[in-house]
Amino acid sequence: MRIFGIDPGSIRTGYGCVETDGTRHRLVLCGAIRTPAGQALPPRLQVIHRELRRLIDEAAPDCVVVENLFHAKHARSALILGHARGVAVLAAVESGLPVLEYTPAEIKQAVVGYGRAEKVQMQQMVKLLLGLDALPTPYDAADALAVAICHAHASGAGTTVKAAGRAPRHLRSWRHARVADLGRRQTP
Amino acid sequence: MRIFGIDPGSIRTGYGCVETDGTRHRLVLCGAIRTPAGQALPPRLQVIHRELRRLIDEAAPDCVVVENLFHAKHARSALILGHARGVAVLAAVESGLPVLEYTPAEIKQAVVGYGRAEKVQMQQMVKLLLGLDALPTPYDAADALAVAICHAHASGAGTTVKAAGRAPRHLRSWRHARVADLGRRQTP
Repeated sequence: MRIFGIDPGSIRTGYGCVETDGTRHRLVLCGAIRTPAGQALPPRLQVIHRELRRLIDEAAPDCVVVENLFHAKHARSALILGHARGVAVLAAVESGLPVLEYTPAEIKQAVVGYGRAEKVQMQQMVKLLLGLDALPTPYDAADALAVAICHAHASGAGTTVKAAGRAPRHLRSWRHARVADLGRRQTP
Repeated sequence: MRIFGIDPGSIRTGYGCVETDGTRHRLVLCGAIRTPAGQALPPRLQVIHRELRRLIDEAAPDCVVVENLFHAKHARSALILGHARGVAVLAAVESGLPVLEYTPAEIKQAVVGYGRAEKVQMQQMVKLLLGLDALPTPYDAADALAVAICHAHASGAGTTVKAAGRAPRHLRSWRHARVADLGRRQTP
């Protein structure tokens, strides 16, 4: 199964596609769509939408997964982020593929095994799980891959993170072990 | 000049097109795109985007004007509204026409002559300015027509509301007279 993950943003929208059998994952493509903050929002929305449509076509996934957000610190930033996420979701729906959504906590839970994991832990986990030599750059690409891996784990484990609220126990344990391992490696 | 106005919303998106010489306006079409709140957001966004693209094509305007919002009470509602506004702005940009934005205060200032006018005053003014027998329904359609009339006044008066901050003095005065007149009529 191929999963296309999106981490929407008005300045950088991360995307990443992985191929998975539910437990082993392979990187297909990843990157970020950059839209300069100095530019007006309308043309930036057009670029995000057009590029995502093109990339989803190119990656030929079986489903598209978008990071969901229910909370934002400020109404102003939520409004702007909503614009970017709106056109990203539209690109996903227009592909005709199933569209799934996970919250940041669900993604962290499914990828790292801990819903309040640090961003850097999740990125290191993405690197490990995809067997990469280095962290995918830009970081938005790593975040989008985490979104895709979240769904791989959720669907591959025969349960949905959405429904279960947290990953199955046997998955939680090995993920914790890996995170602990990462912690040691990062300490000089 | 034909102006297509949009008042975006996740449940109802108002639209209205007016033909204008800068002072006299004529209704071309208006209405609202309804997307049931019970439905998931992704297909609702697709309906808003697709319908707006179709209606803009049908109305064949010279420009598209979208109500701009910088403030919202809650981050959660701002995020949802941002999604709807994002796909509305995208539909406008994809039309290849100039896209303009005015804040609610700018629209009230340009249509009623007072930036803090009540919603009902603005709707009555829309009815008067377009020479209609009744208020356009649903109200979202009237709001979208106000957006279009705002740009008609701003561009027709040889100045932009955005730049001037408020309507020119000669426009303010007659608009105020009209609003006072409306107030009398509404009182039994």
